[in-house]
Amino acid sequence: MEIKVVKKVLDANDEMARQNREMFKEKGVFVLNVMSSPGSGKTATLVKTLGRIMPDIKCAVIVGDICTTNDADRLATTGAPVVQINTDAFGGDCHLAAHVIKKAAQGLDLDSIDLLIIENVGNLVCPAEFDMGENARVVILSVTEGEDKPVKYPLMFRVCDAALLNKIDLLPYLDFDIEEAKGYIQKVHPEIDIFEISARTEHGFDKWIEWLKEKIVW
Amino acid sequence: MEIKVVKKVLDANDEMARQNREMFKEKGVFVLNVMSSPGSGKTATLVKTLGRIMPDIKCAVIVGDICTTNDADRLATTGAPVVQINTDAFGGDCHLAAHVIKKAAQGLDLDSIDLLIIENVGNLVCPAEFDMGENARVVILSVTEGEDKPVKYPLMFRVCDAALLNKIDLLPYLDFDIEEAKGYIQKVHPEIDIFEISARTEHGFDKWIEWLKEKIVW
Repeated sequence: MEIKVVKKVLDANDEMARQNREMFKEKGVFVLNVMSSPGSGKTATLVKTLGRIMPDIKCAVIVGDICTTNDADRLATTGAPVVQINTDAFGGDCHLAAHVIKKAAQGLDLDSIDLLIIENVGNLVCPAEFDMGENARVVILSVTEGEDKPVKYPLMFRVCDAALLNKIDLLPYLDFDIEEAKGYIQKVHPEIDIFEISARTEHGFDKWIEWLKEKIVW
Repeated sequence: MEIKVVKKVLDANDEMARQNREMFKEKGVFVLNVMSSPGSGKTATLVKTLGRIMPDIKCAVIVGDICTTNDADRLATTGAPVVQINTDAFGGDCHLAAHVIKKAAQGLDLDSIDLLIIENVGNLVCPAEFDMGENARVVILSVTEGEDKPVKYPLMFRVCDAALLNKIDLLPYLDFDIEEAKGYIQKVHPEIDIFEISARTEHGFDKWIEWLKEKIVW
């Protein structure tokens, strides 16, 4: 009974995600869904990413949090239009979903956007289950979180096109085996692209930005 | 309609949590629910905590993960009986709930346990909503996650009796303002007890263990 209800919600979400994808395609907007645990560095990574690709690529951001506009405030410093979604208005939801993105997109001038980045709610579980009509998905894993997260939260790594191993400037101070972590990521998703980055120092950003630019060509 | 379904699930959970709490009380078992984001150091903190309080206090652990028995394997090295719950058997659930704990408790000899620790699924959102019949709740926040998590995920900090600021051995290498973080925690929950710890060096463990020991007296 409970499973049926969940299935119905997911089916409805998938149908709306399909509509979103069609709408974004018509407008020539490429949509990137960025996910991670809380505090893995989504906002910091995106601020630095936007600094490197704008204004050549016209960007906008939809950012989801349960509460606060902290992330939107930081992202707005890049000059990109930002729509903040506080999911406490939707019952404190632990993820963004297609209907929320549809509504948020109404606050953006899609004709003047090449790349729409969705910064999801910080959560390594639930967001992986909700398609929003995006064209690519990226997961960020901070090296402070331990090597085994990909095998403990496999769906997240399975649905993503790239994994960014962030905060590698902290590696000298951690007991973190980066090759072991990469091995776990490849174990759950052999075709995924993996980048080592530091949003603080911008180490590894050249390759990540190159990947992103190649990806967003329609 | 959807909200009604969610309410029904939560009501059923609350009723079962009440039954669990009664059962644990009859057996003289104090139950502690430990929650955090993925990779904040729940398992490492618990391994060191068990090492300090066992065998004076007879402990057991129920540990929830979507996949793998990694955490159970680490916890078992302490000599405590450990029950691993893999929520992928329950639909990949992002949290533990009362019915799961009831079932897991059947695998433990409650008569010989003083303290049952529940290590929840790594998630700063959903586990805060599900009472399991515990007597106290602790949230772990790693200082690598940024200062503003308490205001972005307020429910988690509101439902907990103590907050452990973990990995403080990394503070010299981070741009983390610990007083700001504490201020945010107190803003959402003024009565909460806050401890600065490092599960790696055991810095701050004396005070945390003292708090825990005082708490578990029936």
